Amino acid sequence: MTPAVKAILAGYESDNPGVKANLARMLMQGRLGGTGKMVILPVDQGFEHGPARSFAPNPPAYDPHYHFQLAIDAGLSAYAAPLGMLEAGADTFAGQIPTILKVNSSNSWATNINQAVTASVDDALRLGCSAIGFTIYPGADDVFDMIEEIRELSAEAKSVGIATVIWSYPRGGKLSKDGELALDVGAYAAHMAALCGAHIIKVKLPTDHIEQKDAKKAYEGGDWSTQAKRVAHVKQACFNGRRLVVFSGGAAKGADAVFQDARDIRDGGGNGSIIGRNTFQRSREDAMAMLDKIIAIYLGQE
Amino acid sequence: MTPAVKAILAGYESDNPGVKANLARMLMQGRLGGTGKMVILPVDQGFEHGPARSFAPNPPAYDPHYHFQLAIDAGLSAYAAPLGMLEAGADTFAGQIPTILKVNSSNSWATNINQAVTASVDDALRLGCSAIGFTIYPGADDVFDMIEEIRELSAEAKSVGIATVIWSYPRGGKLSKDGELALDVGAYAAHMAALCGAHIIKVKLPTDHIEQKDAKKAYEGGDWSTQAKRVAHVKQACFNGRRLVVFSGGAAKGADAVFQDARDIRDGGGNGSIIGRNTFQRSREDAMAMLDKIIAIYLGQE
Amino acid sequence: MTPAVKAILAGYESDNPGVKANLARMLMQGRLGGTGKMVILPVDQGFEHGPARSFAPNPPAYDPHYHFQLAIDAGLSAYAAPLGMLEAGADTFAGQIPTILKVNSSNSWATNINQAVTASVDDALRLGCSAIGFTIYPGADDVFDMIEEIRELSAEAKSVGIATVIWSYPRGGKLSKDGELALDVGAYAAHMAALCGAHIIKVKLPTDHIEQKDAKKAYEGGDWSTQAKRVAHVKQACFNGRRLVVFSGGAAKGADAVFQDARDIRDGGGNGSIIGRNTFQRSREDAMAMLDKIIAIYLGQE
Amino acid sequence: MTPAVKAILAGYESDNPGVKANLARMLMQGRLGGTGKMVILPVDQGFEHGPARSFAPNPPAYDPHYHFQLAIDAGLSAYAAPLGMLEAGADTFAGQIPTILKVNSSNSWATNINQAVTASVDDALRLGCSAIGFTIYPGADDVFDMIEEIRELSAEAKSVGIATVIWSYPRGGKLSKDGELALDVGAYAAHMAALCGAHIIKVKLPTDHIEQKDAKKAYEGGDWSTQAKRVAHVKQACFNGRRLVVFSGGAAKGADAVFQDARDIRDGGGNGSIIGRNTFQRSREDAMAMLDKIIAIYLGQE
Amino acid sequence: MTPAVKAILAGYESDNPGVKANLARMLMQGRLGGTGKMVILPVDQGFEHGPARSFAPNPPAYDPHYHFQLAIDAGLSAYAAPLGMLEAGADTFAGQIPTILKVNSSNSWATNINQAVTASVDDALRLGCSAIGFTIYPGADDVFDMIEEIRELSAEAKSVGIATVIWSYPRGGKLSKDGELALDVGAYAAHMAALCGAHIIKVKLPTDHIEQKDAKKAYEGGDWSTQAKRVAHVKQACFNGRRLVVFSGGAAKGADAVFQDARDIRDGGGNGSIIGRNTFQRSREDAMAMLDKIIAIYLGQE
Repeated sequence: MTPAVKAILAGYESDNPGVKANLARMLMQGRLGGTGKMVILPVDQGFEHGPARSFAPNPPAYDPHYHFQLAIDAGLSAYAAPLGMLEAGADTFAGQIPTILKVNSSNSWATNINQAVTASVDDALRLGCSAIGFTIYPGADDVFDMIEEIRELSAEAKSVGIATVIWSYPRGGKLSKDGELALDVGAYAAHMAALCGAHIIKVKLPTDHIEQKDAKKAYEGGDWSTQAKRVAHVKQACFNGRRLVVFSGGAAKGADAVFQDARDIRDGGGNGSIIGRNTFQRSREDAMAMLDKIIAIYLGQE
Repeated sequence: MTPAVKAILAGYESDNPGVKANLARMLMQGRLGGTGKMVILPVDQGFEHGPARSFAPNPPAYDPHYHFQLAIDAGLSAYAAPLGMLEAGADTFAGQIPTILKVNSSNSWATNINQAVTASVDDALRLGCSAIGFTIYPGADDVFDMIEEIRELSAEAKSVGIATVIWSYPRGGKLSKDGELALDVGAYAAHMAALCGAHIIKVKLPTDHIEQKDAKKAYEGGDWSTQAKRVAHVKQACFNGRRLVVFSGGAAKGADAVFQDARDIRDGGGNGSIIGRNTFQRSREDAMAMLDKIIAIYLGQE
Repeated sequence: MTPAVKAILAGYESDNPGVKANLARMLMQGRLGGTGKMVILPVDQGFEHGPARSFAPNPPAYDPHYHFQLAIDAGLSAYAAPLGMLEAGADTFAGQIPTILKVNSSNSWATNINQAVTASVDDALRLGCSAIGFTIYPGADDVFDMIEEIRELSAEAKSVGIATVIWSYPRGGKLSKDGELALDVGAYAAHMAALCGAHIIKVKLPTDHIEQKDAKKAYEGGDWSTQAKRVAHVKQACFNGRRLVVFSGGAAKGADAVFQDARDIRDGGGNGSIIGRNTFQRSREDAMAMLDKIIAIYLGQE
Repeated sequence: MTPAVKAILAGYESDNPGVKANLARMLMQGRLGGTGKMVILPVDQGFEHGPARSFAPNPPAYDPHYHFQLAIDAGLSAYAAPLGMLEAGADTFAGQIPTILKVNSSNSWATNINQAVTASVDDALRLGCSAIGFTIYPGADDVFDMIEEIRELSAEAKSVGIATVIWSYPRGGKLSKDGELALDVGAYAAHMAALCGAHIIKVKLPTDHIEQKDAKKAYEGGDWSTQAKRVAHVKQACFNGRRLVVFSGGAAKGADAVFQDARDIRDGGGNGSIIGRNTFQRSREDAMAMLDKIIAIYLGQE
Repeated sequence: MTPAVKAILAGYESDNPGVKANLARMLMQGRLGGTGKMVILPVDQGFEHGPARSFAPNPPAYDPHYHFQLAIDAGLSAYAAPLGMLEAGADTFAGQIPTILKVNSSNSWATNINQAVTASVDDALRLGCSAIGFTIYPGADDVFDMIEEIRELSAEAKSVGIATVIWSYPRGGKLSKDGELALDVGAYAAHMAALCGAHIIKVKLPTDHIEQKDAKKAYEGGDWSTQAKRVAHVKQACFNGRRLVVFSGGAAKGADAVFQDARDIRDGGGNGSIIGRNTFQRSREDAMAMLDKIIAIYLGQE
């Protein structure tokens, strides 16, 4: 156990040792083990966007085992996926990499901005998961329902030593499209997840747009020009750094942009990347090379 | 136990032996026993379309015993029906053919695109069923509720050794009528059922229409001209073949079309047919002859 | 489903279709399937007598898979064993042969005439078993406790479609050593199991000794000189034949004695043999030959 | 994951991935990680013999943190202790070494041969434990009660992904003092634990004494002169090697005897040592040196 | 919060903030608040010895309010009593002093060495108690039952933020009368309470007698001549000081003896006194004077 990880765990002072052991497992896993940084592979895009949009660019990725193996071979911190994806590989890869059971999901045809609960804490236990993952959509009409769902799931998870990861994605309601990625909105969404008791908070990298009129004053005079500074602000919004915050890369994009994101997350004090489509939609060789470089960035070698 | 069945069961690596035994029972039953192919008789049309539309074409079919006997005599893999239909024959035919309790149903007068939960896992146990069956309507406004219902039922079923079959029928919401049968939509719907933890996935045979604008790129350049290729794609979308997928024939149609469907399912690597109206709305003699030929097709004899 | 099996199932008129399906599975399994006769392989001697006394005569039998395979290859009706033995093979052999989970067991050092409950109905469900098995010791000081235990277990099993097999072995209390095998005692013990709601009753082949002074009059004038007649009386004591009764062979003995027992059981209308040590303590080749002949006897060919 | 560990996990074919992940954690931990061998540090002697007898020889051992640190620094596989001992260190050492919660304990003044249940599966979950540990005393008057206690605890543990370790220590009733360590008795006790569904079985190294008259024949002609051969027999008695078996060293003794025991366990195919007093009653320096050598023995280097 | 209290709370590393808050309440209460020392007033003698033996020497003590007021006025740390005693004053004195609900009690006519559970964790919550108190009798025939009772109560208490105090009083079975107060026995009893998960351990001040033959060697060469050294050993036996240990004074005795006990507890590093009869059987004036002096001793002023 390194000082970096000990310092992070100390932030979770009200949690029982079971939760801390699972946080420690993720923080001590893989090539970033012990650094306090994490790279997580999430594969819930099949649910969100359908299998062809997700996996056709790299057909071996249709196989759930592919992702377990990629996460293990690349030396990642954890692998996150919905129930069926984990059920299809949890036995073969038992104990080889911490898993995060994504317990709610939406899909491309959803007619309201919400998600269905698709798995339980009991599923997480029987599948040997270290955490549950849950998406909330701050701003959406149904956000109160989503918050109440994660409240119940998270309370149960905490009592049995399972950690909680909240994907906090502002969307819907009064939010403009630009607003979804605004700095004030992203920091607010991250803070809301922290307030809901998340152990790990997953948000998108924010732009320098400030969406809320009422918040403009608070941001006035600040220098939000660099992504690293914006990352630092989000981290600040998560209990002044007492909570782990990882950033998602969004849609597939050029490798250089992905690497720059990682450098900015690192420089801003973020805890790492949760990176799905940008890896599994590339060939395995390319994905391994990209993940190798991302890890090198977090290790300060690039 | 044949190598074909063993290979299929190996895909259910997280399931307990009780679930695997029930999957094995269906896969080892009847004339296709051991081949990894299945023909299932579903009789829930009475609920969906009313008794006269369902059974008047062949009045003996009003009697629940008729369907048990047909499925047994034709050497099918399993018989699926709602609670009352199974209660009316489960004693007489106990142990003679695996049964699937259809635990939700809609009807012709439904004012929203949803189904009512009409039976429980306890019912499945007391009636000696091998599986529960559940319909979801991806695309519908209520799909999140349906997914949450099957999540609970399926978790309970898995814990007591009962398998789960999901009927995944895109419908409602933003989907066009053509879209309901589109290849991208069908593959997505099948994938969604797999992600929800289904052991057996039942979908309709898709057309070569691509419904979703965002998905067109993923299908570009592919050859989707034959039904067998489309079946193969749906199977790929179900964890690269790790899940059993059976296809429904839809409305009653000509025998030749039914046979061609079976050949295409076979050639595309699908696991079989779930065929209701096309058999029980014919005379028993015709139905037996049709099923005999379908089985011969799956056996590679036709 | 044969008339013989249908007639047997008709005796279980209060049971739900789930229980009947599991009885039917055992009655339709293997080479005796459909005849109404059964040969069951029980391997709980490791618990009762220790591993070396049980398996040293034929060392491959130390492996739990050995017994599953023997029962399957010999075409038997079911395989019965304690929790650990079934857990060690239930996945590999899922769906290949009905299993009976022996849910209580004693051991060689027991200081009272009783058994420990070692498994539950939930275990039976998750392991895909068709029945639970339970021993009672009529005559023992603790028999009321044992009866109350099986009452609870059996009620739960019946509600979820699992059958109940009672091993009824008179022992302890006021019974003499000869009395344990006495005809009146054996018939009484079998009747007691039937009264407790057993679906299948397992007793030892009785001698012509009459143990109870008060019962002598009832047996006076009867001809109990042949084993077949005594078998017929035990069967009569089990609701005039409405319950399945199988007989255990006891300690390992000569093959001819084993065959004669089977002939007597058959001729007396018993439903078969539950035969452990006499098979698995022989080499696999000898055991297969012996079981082949026993089955031939029950088929009326020997 | 090494082939050795994969082969071991395959023996637990009926367990869910959660249980397998916890078994894998212990088998992949520390310096023996991946070899299929384990060295476990158990510290329940304070309960069994009192604090002074346990810790006065090496006073730093009064501190619960001492044992966590020793197990971690020595590169052991797991650390086992009662509730209070784990509560006093589980937060500080969260995620650093797999822990086994000993859920029953006796003490020096016990007036019957039994133990008190002192912790629950819920405790194991909140403390982040990989397994529960439970002692049974085959031979004791109360052994049926003990077996029924572990049956309930183990069923609950298995359902939530926690492994079960059974300490099987013959004692009491008809057993002679020599008999407690007899080969036949030890093999029987180990087999009984396996039948009760234990994942890991802990027994004492047996002598070549054969205690049971009825078992003598089964051991006749065998060569039981070496400890390695006796270890091999115990392993055989645990489902022909399908279960992990670790051996305890008993009372503190000379280092050479401890090393010879480890060599014999290794040569007989045992899975390792569970070694308490022989390490923590020595100075930390001596204990580290001893554990270093024991590990080297299991690595085949000594 | 003082450094002394922080250091003590750090020993309870697996407990939730609710439990720690209640421990902190007791440690920050009254005139010893912040010192890490405690004086607790226990009034369960009415249950143990009857009202007249308990209260006739100072009749105002028949009134439950008397004891609340005494504990408050004397500036004590907490007040401990059975259900009825607390119910009779918990409203009037709500929030004025931490209370400990004694949840089991014996009485003068008990025919076995055990206690009745007389209150629940729910009672503790509704009465606003900071802890439950429970007596175990190590050595007694029924000690396993008592341990299992406190295991359940303590687990429930911990989950709702209530602390646990165990009175560990060796008695019965093989223990001699002298043995009940022996140093080895007292240290063992205290250790056992710690292992059972007690937050605060209450034992009697031990004599220098060593009761257990097997333990003599561990105590050989030690200097146990002073009470302070014996207190230090008991504290060592409680996880090397990681647990709070308070000592009871036993039967009413002279004031000087009481003061000397307090000095010895203080000098040995014990955490304080739990003192009942010696105060409430004196007049209020005398009791106040005595408690004033005891507190001065713990403050190092006497």
